[in-house]
Amino acid sequence: MNNPEPEFLPVPGIRLGAAAAGIKYTDRNDLVVIELAEGTDCAAVFTRNAFCAAPVVVAREHLQAVAPRYLLINSGNANAGTGGDGLRAAREACRALAAARGCAINQILPFSTGVIGEALPVNRIAVAVPEALTALSDRGWPAAARAIMTTDTVPKLCSRQFEYQGQRVTVTGMAKGSGMIRPDMATMLAYVATDARVEPGLLQACLEQAVAPSFNSITVDGDTSTNDACVLLASGVSPCPPINDSGSALFKDLCSAVGEVCMELARAIVRDGEGATKLVEVRVDQAASLEEARRVAYTIAHSPLVKTALFASDPNWGRILAAVGRAGVEGLVVERVGIWLDDICIVRHGSRAADYTEAAGQSVMEQDTFTIRVALGRGDQSTRVLTCDLSHEYVRINAEYRT
Amino acid sequence: MNNPEPEFLPVPGIRLGAAAAGIKYTDRNDLVVIELAEGTDCAAVFTRNAFCAAPVVVAREHLQAVAPRYLLINSGNANAGTGGDGLRAAREACRALAAARGCAINQILPFSTGVIGEALPVNRIAVAVPEALTALSDRGWPAAARAIMTTDTVPKLCSRQFEYQGQRVTVTGMAKGSGMIRPDMATMLAYVATDARVEPGLLQACLEQAVAPSFNSITVDGDTSTNDACVLLASGVSPCPPINDSGSALFKDLCSAVGEVCMELARAIVRDGEGATKLVEVRVDQAASLEEARRVAYTIAHSPLVKTALFASDPNWGRILAAVGRAGVEGLVVERVGIWLDDICIVRHGSRAADYTEAAGQSVMEQDTFTIRVALGRGDQSTRVLTCDLSHEYVRINAEYRT
Repeated sequence: MNNPEPEFLPVPGIRLGAAAAGIKYTDRNDLVVIELAEGTDCAAVFTRNAFCAAPVVVAREHLQAVAPRYLLINSGNANAGTGGDGLRAAREACRALAAARGCAINQILPFSTGVIGEALPVNRIAVAVPEALTALSDRGWPAAARAIMTTDTVPKLCSRQFEYQGQRVTVTGMAKGSGMIRPDMATMLAYVATDARVEPGLLQACLEQAVAPSFNSITVDGDTSTNDACVLLASGVSPCPPINDSGSALFKDLCSAVGEVCMELARAIVRDGEGATKLVEVRVDQAASLEEARRVAYTIAHSPLVKTALFASDPNWGRILAAVGRAGVEGLVVERVGIWLDDICIVRHGSRAADYTEAAGQSVMEQDTFTIRVALGRGDQSTRVLTCDLSHEYVRINAEYRT
Repeated sequence: MNNPEPEFLPVPGIRLGAAAAGIKYTDRNDLVVIELAEGTDCAAVFTRNAFCAAPVVVAREHLQAVAPRYLLINSGNANAGTGGDGLRAAREACRALAAARGCAINQILPFSTGVIGEALPVNRIAVAVPEALTALSDRGWPAAARAIMTTDTVPKLCSRQFEYQGQRVTVTGMAKGSGMIRPDMATMLAYVATDARVEPGLLQACLEQAVAPSFNSITVDGDTSTNDACVLLASGVSPCPPINDSGSALFKDLCSAVGEVCMELARAIVRDGEGATKLVEVRVDQAASLEEARRVAYTIAHSPLVKTALFASDPNWGRILAAVGRAGVEGLVVERVGIWLDDICIVRHGSRAADYTEAAGQSVMEQDTFTIRVALGRGDQSTRVLTCDLSHEYVRINAEYRT
């Protein structure tokens, strides 16, 4: 908690407040309320895990019914695997906030993150809601980014700004996530907001476009969470003209800013992966299809043998080669496969490159950040996946998480 | 190496000899020759990793050409990812043994296990071959089982015997494997021999039947090796009648004995998985298809979050539930899902069972061996997969393996 205050830009029309509800942690904030200006548009993507959490079910329902006015987020308890009681608890939490603000229950979107399978202590949330409301401020982002953390070691928050016809548009986002990270549709709680005014269909398109190469292309441990959610809010408070054309320069500028914010938050999540000491990009080129490229990239990124070699800074490239070979690429011609660590070619035509030296491989692997690149020699599709190493600390964190 | 001498029964017609070639290890045997009586039938299955090792390519070639007389196995170097040089090295090693015994090169099947991507020191193998030949004995199994070890901590060797019309038939097998274990077709070097006489087609059927629920249903780290191979030898020296009918009682007895030997060796591999402290069976019932059952079982068995919880004896069942949810089962109705730890029901109708207590879950998880059972409520297909936990020791072993 001694991290420097992360830099950010407030988003006109969006206020955040944090409070300590004592859900699991006793010495920190664990509850966040985000208030949206009237007329704010909201796009969202959620986990595809079949066991999605109660708040995911309720948030989806509410989002289909009306435009939300508040987001209510707790850490320390995921309210997942909790059946009908969990759904009731999620709705009760919304009811407490709705009563305090005089709005409808379905104008609140609930989100939870933490331990799976334990009952959500709704009363503690209800008691803490007034404190969170009192704290509401457009400068509440850093406190909120801290309050949603679980095994995260740093808050994740970033901003972009661009100008359109002399008017500034701001995009600010925060995310949490460190373990159970292999988002499939979205990641463990990310909230991005802008003051631009965007048509709902376009806002969803902007979000999905931003999520694909960022949150949907990272993995810490391959475990897709039950609670993943990513929300993009557009308050519309900006004096810029409304965006209603996907071909407009303004929409492209917005997509680019949202994309950059999502990518920076996604990188921050992997860099803060449980026990991670390195951030590694796995890039697969020359695949016959995107699906094939992703399969090879994730097979490398999930291999415990590759991940422990990354941790050891050991250019044990046979493990990368073995991962490519077992990725299930039908008819792979190994003689066409090349593998690089940054610019160092380690495998050419399917076997060790003649000019490769262990020392050269080692010098790349000793860096904090580098790229493993595989060329399959089958086509022109590419993909990138961000991952981290597997360290002693990962085992310690996950063997001790509940105790 | 201070393990007690494993028990075994010699197989008439099969002799084994070990020697120290100094390929990587300097203080132990690392080379094995297995001599097969004339007329021995040989069935084999190999890795499906596209980057299969040079000895796998050569062994497949030789096996198609003629009946083998010798198996030549080294540990400490996998001769994988070595391209054309690797193929030449594998053939050179065979040539050294063929010259010493006056047989054809393609009557030798080569096998290698160890580090990927380094040149095989053929000269050292050639120098040590005479020592291995001098050691040939039908009692050579324990020395051979030790010589093929890499990160294994115990030799893996077991036997079965049955009687047919007053005549004994013996089945003895050995295996090595501890890491890079997620066999796909066969596992990291397993050799099973019998003195029964079996028609080639039936011998292959017997092997494939035995391998499916044993070596092909285990995982330590999800990494399918480049060198996996499982060989079943039938010397035909037994006085029992030849087996040429798949419906015969003798064939069924043999399949059952071979199946038991493979299962015991497979369990021994998982129990000796790198850093493993527990042996856990993941059983999936009520799946709509076998493929779906296997996908769910492996998703659980590979989850680092589940595996670290197993290590910690922590009944953090939310991680199991999350793994089931992300296994990609189309249209899974979570309300029909049940999860058990041995006989303790933890999840019923998709959420925490009312009668479940943490203490009950803990008491199962504290055992060395137990079963995680998932019922999907979709059909009548079942599968079982054996796996182990993920410990500090796993990371230490794999971060230090080459140093």
